[in-house]
Formats: sequence, C-alpha cells, structure tokens
Amino acid sequence: MTFVLKTDAQRAFEWSRHFAESAPEIAFRLWPDIGDPAQVRFLATWSLPPDLATTLPNLELLFSTGAGVDQFDLSRLPGHVQVVRMVEPGIVDGMVEYVTMAVLAWHRDLFAYLARQRTASWEPIRVQTAASRKVGVLGLGMLGQAVARKLAGFGFEMHGWSRNRREIPGVRCHAGAAALPGFLASCQALVFLLPLTEQTLGMLNASLFARLPRGATLINVARGQHLLLDDLRAALNDGQLAGAILDVTDPEPLPPDHWLWSDRRVVVTPHIASMTQPETAVRSVLQNLRRHARGEAMVGLVDRTRGY
Amino acid sequence: MTFVLKTDAQRAFEWSRHFAESAPEIAFRLWPDIGDPAQVRFLATWSLPPDLATTLPNLELLFSTGAGVDQFDLSRLPGHVQVVRMVEPGIVDGMVEYVTMAVLAWHRDLFAYLARQRTASWEPIRVQTAASRKVGVLGLGMLGQAVARKLAGFGFEMHGWSRNRREIPGVRCHAGAAALPGFLASCQALVFLLPLTEQTLGMLNASLFARLPRGATLINVARGQHLLLDDLRAALNDGQLAGAILDVTDPEPLPPDHWLWSDRRVVVTPHIASMTQPETAVRSVLQNLRRHARGEAMVGLVDRTRGY
Repeated sequence: MTFVLKTDAQRAFEWSRHFAESAPEIAFRLWPDIGDPAQVRFLATWSLPPDLATTLPNLELLFSTGAGVDQFDLSRLPGHVQVVRMVEPGIVDGMVEYVTMAVLAWHRDLFAYLARQRTASWEPIRVQTAASRKVGVLGLGMLGQAVARKLAGFGFEMHGWSRNRREIPGVRCHAGAAALPGFLASCQALVFLLPLTEQTLGMLNASLFARLPRGATLINVARGQHLLLDDLRAALNDGQLAGAILDVTDPEPLPPDHWLWSDRRVVVTPHIASMTQPETAVRSVLQNLRRHARGEAMVGLVDRTRGY
Repeated sequence: MTFVLKTDAQRAFEWSRHFAESAPEIAFRLWPDIGDPAQVRFLATWSLPPDLATTLPNLELLFSTGAGVDQFDLSRLPGHVQVVRMVEPGIVDGMVEYVTMAVLAWHRDLFAYLARQRTASWEPIRVQTAASRKVGVLGLGMLGQAVARKLAGFGFEMHGWSRNRREIPGVRCHAGAAALPGFLASCQALVFLLPLTEQTLGMLNASLFARLPRGATLINVARGQHLLLDDLRAALNDGQLAGAILDVTDPEPLPPDHWLWSDRRVVVTPHIASMTQPETAVRSVLQNLRRHARGEAMVGLVDRTRGY
C-alpha cells in the first residue's frame, strides 16, 4: 500500500519530511519513482499523469494538492476513484490575507498613491469610512466564508452570495440565481471565489459587470477561465469597472506581451493568493486517510457529478 | 459661551451640520468669524492661531482635530487651558486599515509583484505563513493597541513595546527602556506609532535600525520628525533595512525633488493613514464637553508636562 506524491522538488522534500515524522508506517514515494504500480492506492498531485487508469490500476484516492480540482479531467478517471480537494488552514489563511490586502488597497487608494508617487505628487484623498463601502464575496465555500468574515471585522458593508443559503455573522447573505442581480448591485468591490465548473466558466462577463455599481473593482482569486478578458477591457474602457486585481489569468503564466501586464487599471499577481502549506497539508491528508480507513466521510471529498 | 472650529471649508461644513443636529444649544462658529472673543471658551483646531492668549482670553479647552498635539507649541498656551487629543473611532479605524494593508503588502510581497508586473514577469514567491513572521508595534497607545490586536488576528508573531506595561491578547508586550533592544530584535516589520515628544524626536535612527533583524521593513505612521532620513538611506543602501513604508515625512508636503519619491525601496503616502471623521469626532467632542461640564475627566486630556 503506497502513497505517491507528484510535485516539485522543494515541496517533495517538505512533504517527505512531514510524512516521515507523522506517519512512518506509510510507504511514501515520489513520482516517478513509484515502486510497484499495483501497490499504489493513494496519489496526491496537481496534474494528472497520463493513462492513470492503466498506470495505477489500484488507485483508490486522488488528492489534489490545491484547493481546486478543475485542473483534473474527471472523465479520464475510473468511476471508483474518489477525488479529494485540499482543505487545510494554510490555503484559507493565504486567501484571507491576499483578499484583505486587495480590498484594503482598493478602499485606501493604494494604487492611486503609488501612481502619484511616480509623479512626486503629494495629494491626499479623503478617507471614506469602511461602513460606507460595499464589498461582496461571490462564492461562500470554505474560502469565501473565511474572507467575508475577516472583511466584516473591518466594518465594511459586507454582502455574500452562494447557491445555497449561508449564515455568516456580519454578512448579508444572498442565495440562489434569482438573488444574484441584487447581490451584484451591492458590490463596489467584487471578490470572485466560485469553483470553476461548466456553469461558472466565463461567468465574469459583460452582463455580470453591467449589474455592478458603476466604477466597481473586480478582485478575481478563483480561475482565469472565469473571466472574459475582452469584456473586462471593454468595461474598463467604458468606466463601468474602475479596476481589476487579478491573481489568476488564462493562460498561466501570462505571456510577456499580454495587455493585462501594462494596463494601469489592472494589478496582476502570479497565482499566489493562496498556496498549500506542506505541514498543514500533510496533516489534512493523513486525517483523511484515517477517516477513509474507518469508513468515515473525508473532508473535501468531491462530488464528481457537480465537479467540486 | 462659544465653540469655535478652525479648519478647511469641507470639514467646517460637516462639523457645522453635526453640531447643529446634535447640540443646537451650543453657539458654534467658524474661524475667523468668532463673534465676541470674550465668549469663546472652546476651540477645536489643528494649528494654533497667533496670540491665542490675547485673542481668546477666556479659552478653557483646546481640542486638537487630530490624534496628535505635537503641532501645538504648548509653551505659548496659558497654563489654565486644557488640551485634548482627538480620540474617536474614525481615527483608530483608519490607522488599523492602513497598517494592516501595509503589513500584508510586506508579508505578501505586493511591491515586488508590482515591480514584476512592470517587466511582465510571472514569477511566484513562495508564501510564508503569518506565524513565521515577526511584526512589532512600537507604541501601544490607543492606536498601537488597536493595530496590534488586529494584526494578531492574522496569526503573525506579534510584539509590542510601550513605556509602561500593557496586556494585549495575542501580543508579546515588552515594557520600558531596558526591554527595547529585545523588542527591536523581534521586528521583521516595525510599525512605529509613538507620539512626537522631545524624547522621541529622531528616534528612528541608525542605532535603532541596527537592532532590527537584518532586512527588516519600517512602517512609519507617527511623524516625519521621528525619522532621520540620512540614517534611513544608509540603512537601505547597506541592506540593514529592505524597505520603508512612510505615511509621514519631514517636511510635509514632501518637495517634488525629494529622494524619497523615487527610491524604489520606499513607499510614500501623503499622511492619509488616519483622518478624523467629522461625525464621530463631533460626537467625541460633545461627550467631552459634557464630561467637562460635570467636572469629570475628559477622554484624551493631554498631560502638558509629558507632551501627549
């Protein structure tokens, strides 16, 4: 019974160490040095190796090393393989930090001040209270809930939207498709945090932008494929959107000659909002392995029909 | 009995409105249209009018419209005039927002990413956990305490220093001059929030920088006069400091040809971290007037011998 990890050298080193410390009884191996393929029951990876069904015939559990599983072509996986998203506090903390930074940078005009610094202009902008600012989080899963809760602690007028109703203290929670337009009308800053599925692909488009208050700012920390870039550019040119902070793009890495890099209304970071932290990730994987062995429900188990 | 406010037109308009709503019984006037000078018992201002002792012979209370009173030459004030700092939630909230933004921008490499965006380079930097980062707040008055408490909520290893011992949950509080070197050694990012007095003038100097961990970042949100700019430049050139985020400078406004504007290791904002919010400021002033009338202690009363 072997657990295989497929990742880069630095992360491989750290996972190995944490596995050796916390679960020395598990045969832990690094891709591609997997030993007897028939023994491999567990695989943790970001990208699927080719021909998984034939290479690893006895695979039971596929762990994503990231928060999403949209990078997996689930149709290529045998039906009996269970897929598990990474649910670990490091991912949540990173996302909360990044989005808080982005929302505060928007709220406190940081990018305008950086531009003024380049022209050596000392030009204060009147501070608005957080209570007078409307911020919305689209997607209230594990990450969205944590983000909304943290932002509420700064006193913003917080709104959240999810398919099924949530209750989050300090956040006005909207639910279901019919409530989406009302939610969007309440987002001077929109934090986008839905999983990438067939339903959400291209969802950040002209018709969604048109429902935001004029001059809104978009913060996309989900997937680049959610966003139609031509629609973004038109909304920026038109003034419907004042700016965008994008941690994800399509493709990644973003090519050097892409217009997003040089548009002064856009901030691009290279998909770093949230990264799995090896120590807490290994703890999470080991807890799920124990739950699996006892026949209990694993945390982050993916509904393969729903896609997340 | 007249209350006089000396400020700019926009703020004057807002204070007038809030005074009229909340305390119509008070004769509220705007400088320089003060009516009978002998009637003026209360003055709220950022800068002292000339010859205050003779112009306003019956002045009892001088309210600063900002968090500090270092801009007042207290030696010019008759001894019986009581001086009151502005203590109101708007100032605290603004400072907490700004410092949180600055610390997260440091922690999450925002300025490095903005530089990489200018060269179109997609180059992720490994995310460190907040728990692995040491942040210190020098000065644990009303603002410093609020800042330290908020940052502790992100999981940073938080340190604080004050002259007299404080207790703040989640913050290792150091107290007194002897504890200062140990505190400074624990500050990968140093948030400076002491009042400006004869004792703290020029305190951000080479010998203080030398006690920080190598490569530390300075966040000055107190006063420009705290910081010796030649020492800052030397510490940046030497690598002892990696960067500085300065909301205050000396002088203000910073002249267009000043080196701080164009140094890529420095972020300058035009003294906007925290601004008095008229609505809550008026509420705070009115509460103090009531306390004063009842012979109770006012919130923010300055110890004129101590200077803050």
